[in-house]
Amino acid sequence: MKNGERTISSALKNSILLVTSNENKYKEIAEIAKDYKVELEWLKIPKLEIQADTLEEVVRYSAIVIFQLVKRPLIVEDSGLFIKSLNDFPGPYTNYVRRKLGLEGILKLLEGKNDRSAYFKTSLCYIDEARQLLFNGTVNGRISDTIRGEKGFGFDPIFIPEGESRTFAEMSTEEKNRYSHRSKAFKAFLEYYTNQ
Amino acid sequence: MKNGERTISSALKNSILLVTSNENKYKEIAEIAKDYKVELEWLKIPKLEIQADTLEEVVRYSAIVIFQLVKRPLIVEDSGLFIKSLNDFPGPYTNYVRRKLGLEGILKLLEGKNDRSAYFKTSLCYIDEARQLLFNGTVNGRISDTIRGEKGFGFDPIFIPEGESRTFAEMSTEEKNRYSHRSKAFKAFLEYYTNQ
Repeated sequence: MKNGERTISSALKNSILLVTSNENKYKEIAEIAKDYKVELEWLKIPKLEIQADTLEEVVRYSAIVIFQLVKRPLIVEDSGLFIKSLNDFPGPYTNYVRRKLGLEGILKLLEGKNDRSAYFKTSLCYIDEARQLLFNGTVNGRISDTIRGEKGFGFDPIFIPEGESRTFAEMSTEEKNRYSHRSKAFKAFLEYYTNQ
Repeated sequence: MKNGERTISSALKNSILLVTSNENKYKEIAEIAKDYKVELEWLKIPKLEIQADTLEEVVRYSAIVIFQLVKRPLIVEDSGLFIKSLNDFPGPYTNYVRRKLGLEGILKLLEGKNDRSAYFKTSLCYIDEARQLLFNGTVNGRISDTIRGEKGFGFDPIFIPEGESRTFAEMSTEEKNRYSHRSKAFKAFLEYYTNQ
């Protein structure tokens, strides 16, 4: 019966809820998790986000609130663009700023600034009955001078990753994923989770 | 004994916690409340704020969370600057944007835009065991072309209220308070609260 027990316990262990209202995000991440034989279930709810200067604070709070409701192991993730010469703006408010100021707003704020360096970052929080764990993934790069490319979403058309001349929006999904801050964060978690 | 009873019941009724980490804000509002014979106690904690597009959502959530902890009638307030040609940016993120982009950032974003109209708004949420009530106060105006004046705080040096040529930062506190969105919101609440 030892094998049977192990199967049951692995099945329980490997079912984790991923909290996001974005189906593409769920699909992208579930694909990565499959490589690690971890099953992600999609919990399609908008996550409650607090105002904070760091992504880590945002996802920790969301995770604990949602865990108190569903009482099952789950992951909350959040991503942001941090621009050095703007004191890390827009950071945790990246989606809001994208909607309100657009790509043009960011280019305007950077007019006349020599330092255009920036990074994308994902923070994810895994929570279960015993633990709350944080994992990060980042991709360094710079803000382009103009809007370029049609692919991707968010600030992709003005972000050029290190070692590249194209923006994220000029790359295929596959190319972009090689750099992806989000996949880095999830791989860090999955490495930890499957090797504990 | 009727008078005695009334005194006790008024005393209980009139003690409300004001949640803010800002002493100046507490003093300013406690002064207004005195005129209505309402006693405000200062609950000096940073209020937990969610990410939302409206101040109303922010204060409602904070109020219910803090009420669950302290179980006493309390008020949470939040204020923001809403700029029309920037789709109401920075709105509920006014403090964050002030710290990250400064006054200069806002002036830069408005370069070349004809419409400089904007308003300051305060939303307050009163909560007790039976009710959760919202009150707003606004002051209309426009964003100045340059930074002017040393008084006040936040975006005062670039905000000119309707019917004025000076910015808030060029006015005395008394003058500014005549227009104040914050005092309007609190007076609306106090009128309601003392007349129910």
